Amino acid sequence: MLSTVVSRLHFIGLSRLVYRPFLTTTRTMTQANKPASTQDRSNLIPFSSRLKEGRALAQDVWSIFNVANLPAECINLGQGYMNFPPPQWVTEAAEEALKAVAPNHYSHPRGRIRLRQAIKGFYDSLFHRNLNVESEILVTSGANEGQYSVFTAFLEQGDEVIMFEPFFDQYLPSVTFNGGKPVYVPLHPPRNGQGRDSSNDWTIDFNELRRAITPRAKIIIVNTPHNPVGKVFRKDELEAIAALAEEFNLMVMSDEVYDCLVFDGKEHVRIANLPGMWDRTVTVGSAGKAFAATGWRVGWLIGPPSIIQPTLAATTRIVFCTNSPLQEAAAAGLEQARERKFFENQRDEYAERRAILTDAFDQLGMKYTLPEGSYFVLLDISNVQFPDDYPFPQSVLGRGRDFRYFKMACWFIALEVGVSSIPVSEFYCEEHANIGEAYGRFAFCKDVETLKKAAERLQGLKKYLK
Amino acid sequence: MLSTVVSRLHFIGLSRLVYRPFLTTTRTMTQANKPASTQDRSNLIPFSSRLKEGRALAQDVWSIFNVANLPAECINLGQGYMNFPPPQWVTEAAEEALKAVAPNHYSHPRGRIRLRQAIKGFYDSLFHRNLNVESEILVTSGANEGQYSVFTAFLEQGDEVIMFEPFFDQYLPSVTFNGGKPVYVPLHPPRNGQGRDSSNDWTIDFNELRRAITPRAKIIIVNTPHNPVGKVFRKDELEAIAALAEEFNLMVMSDEVYDCLVFDGKEHVRIANLPGMWDRTVTVGSAGKAFAATGWRVGWLIGPPSIIQPTLAATTRIVFCTNSPLQEAAAAGLEQARERKFFENQRDEYAERRAILTDAFDQLGMKYTLPEGSYFVLLDISNVQFPDDYPFPQSVLGRGRDFRYFKMACWFIALEVGVSSIPVSEFYCEEHANIGEAYGRFAFCKDVETLKKAAERLQGLKKYLK
Repeated sequence: MLSTVVSRLHFIGLSRLVYRPFLTTTRTMTQANKPASTQDRSNLIPFSSRLKEGRALAQDVWSIFNVANLPAECINLGQGYMNFPPPQWVTEAAEEALKAVAPNHYSHPRGRIRLRQAIKGFYDSLFHRNLNVESEILVTSGANEGQYSVFTAFLEQGDEVIMFEPFFDQYLPSVTFNGGKPVYVPLHPPRNGQGRDSSNDWTIDFNELRRAITPRAKIIIVNTPHNPVGKVFRKDELEAIAALAEEFNLMVMSDEVYDCLVFDGKEHVRIANLPGMWDRTVTVGSAGKAFAATGWRVGWLIGPPSIIQPTLAATTRIVFCTNSPLQEAAAAGLEQARERKFFENQRDEYAERRAILTDAFDQLGMKYTLPEGSYFVLLDISNVQFPDDYPFPQSVLGRGRDFRYFKMACWFIALEVGVSSIPVSEFYCEEHANIGEAYGRFAFCKDVETLKKAAERLQGLKKYLK
Repeated sequence: MLSTVVSRLHFIGLSRLVYRPFLTTTRTMTQANKPASTQDRSNLIPFSSRLKEGRALAQDVWSIFNVANLPAECINLGQGYMNFPPPQWVTEAAEEALKAVAPNHYSHPRGRIRLRQAIKGFYDSLFHRNLNVESEILVTSGANEGQYSVFTAFLEQGDEVIMFEPFFDQYLPSVTFNGGKPVYVPLHPPRNGQGRDSSNDWTIDFNELRRAITPRAKIIIVNTPHNPVGKVFRKDELEAIAALAEEFNLMVMSDEVYDCLVFDGKEHVRIANLPGMWDRTVTVGSAGKAFAATGWRVGWLIGPPSIIQPTLAATTRIVFCTNSPLQEAAAAGLEQARERKFFENQRDEYAERRAILTDAFDQLGMKYTLPEGSYFVLLDISNVQFPDDYPFPQSVLGRGRDFRYFKMACWFIALEVGVSSIPVSEFYCEEHANIGEAYGRFAFCKDVETLKKAAERLQGLKKYLK
């Protein structure tokens, strides 16, 4: 166990920090008794234990499956960012902002008023409300920082946060860094499915969910459309979650960053709109996902003043404010999206991209989950057979026995056919890893040409299928 | 006392959250026993106690002296942002980035490689080192978030962080949110000074500093050039701080965001360059301060791997990464700054701006501190006399008796002569507030025309001087 941890830390150059617990904790002795010149000075200040609790020093799956570690010609469907730019009519607003004075300087910590008004303009009808730009909308430095700030604003030491597995891996450290404790409730994959399952076939066991709620439970995270499953939570599912939130007085953090990507006429239901739920729900949005601009770090939170105001107090201290020029761009995007039918067109483009990938899986006769939303397809990789003596790097072999097989399979696919993906086992806690471990996550937020090339390459898997 | 707190919270719309401690803590009772329709649902989820500890819900001086609360024609020298744009040759790099693909998407959590290389190119000679772009440089979402991440990475519950007063007010919540405890050591203002003092006359009592260091002390914050005093710490002062850091094994966080603004040939000494100090020092820089772009939220940390790597782990979870397009702009800025003599010219421009303000104070015969660095002048406002019955808003009268007079004086100056400033008393803990309370902070990061107009208006103070 120790050797496993050490090898993972070694990979990112942190092993030295772990090897010397005594040196780092017995400070008075080391410096009072020894002249500085004979001390090992490469690690004088001990880092916080919260980094270990939050798995933050562990080598995560992103580092292992990073493009830098894969052959240059490998097509990267592992990471969820686009290989195409944001629309020009959106970026032009940022270019204009850069030529002006005020949009180069601090924005109000709540966000620039133009963006808050654009968010109101776009979302009022979707929430059936007259949103207040001063107290019910908060711009954040990406959805990620927005969610982090909610945890900072609401978690006391030991408060529990319930999350469905597979979970977006940033939730875990965001909770533990703020003193919270993650509680995991698995989504159950379709059983005995063949070929194409629907993300709707991934189910919640509501008795299991109820059992997971202790008196310390404070927040439940809902992620719809769901990353990585693609599940768009049904109204009846959200109603059952809402009833539990009401019964146990939980805040609901509804991560809806993929709300603009819902396919096949499926309805995206907002839990904040269910009776009584507005008062306890904060909804998370993202300009990066909406406008193909993951590097802008502009997101937003929508909710009641009782959630937004304390979160404002937190985010103001964490980042002070969000970058101004790209807020202007996000504002332009939301202002013009309806008239341009931007999200409808974008959704259709993504549906086409999705089909390229799923057609390839159909052709292979492989089992997968057809996503109703988001831009990921989960491919069942349990019947991919790789040679026993395949030369896997230590990083892939690293983390526990349970996780190994599917991580190895994803690595093998990346190296042998040249298409990278992410093993879904990484998005479960250790105890639940077997529940959804059979899948690799393939992102289709790439241009058609790239996806067609990936689809072609994936046919090379045929000869490795059991 | 309660009424004071309540009135401050009321001002930012948070008073309701404070009035109902019972409702917010007795959750099981409220929802189990009452039908939802009869509950007061405006405040269901209690916010975290860390917000109160960090003064984060209190109405801060920035909200009180916000442009929105002052007459439209008031010249804003309160807040430290520029009323001019960044240089065009810098913003052009962002415009180019917006037209490309990769610089619109996630950057590496360490920062885009072009910026890290530009930081290395600019700072190698200043640190007399061959900085490693993978392990010794970290791009952050503004200097503020960088510092926050250091606290997240290194503070355990109860660890102490020493800061000199007056302190940059974000330090306090950044420390307490991460479980730390601030320890305040005052800079002592010049005594019996007349007219123009130097920021060098603000002194550290090193016995006082030594007494403040307990076994729980972990970090000491050095801010040079200092906001708001303008003090550029002398080498002998930094050596004395370094000796204490060495003796007690403290990390030094050296906030040097104004390093490009040092006047009158004064030497900016980097504490990281003192013997042995590299191993325990992280130096903080800011593109916003360097390139007149406070709204870009691009900063950086430079230090040994033992500090940078854990901080990377923290920042990756807090914001994931920093916005990409403005990193490209910051990179262009650092790449070309030397050839263009940009910082030399900028410093000369600021020296001219400083003179406009200090000439006005000289003409008034008022006492002030001439800053050796940064873009603030502290004006002694203790002899400003305002009518007993002047109609001050409740927010100005709010915070404790000690703080009142000088807050009132700043408000009076803003309203009567039309130039806003910030009372320095806000940057002291309550016990030390009397030490430097006599000053108002005037920012000169404004264009010459605005400063000349402000200087003219300030002559109107003459008739109110005792």
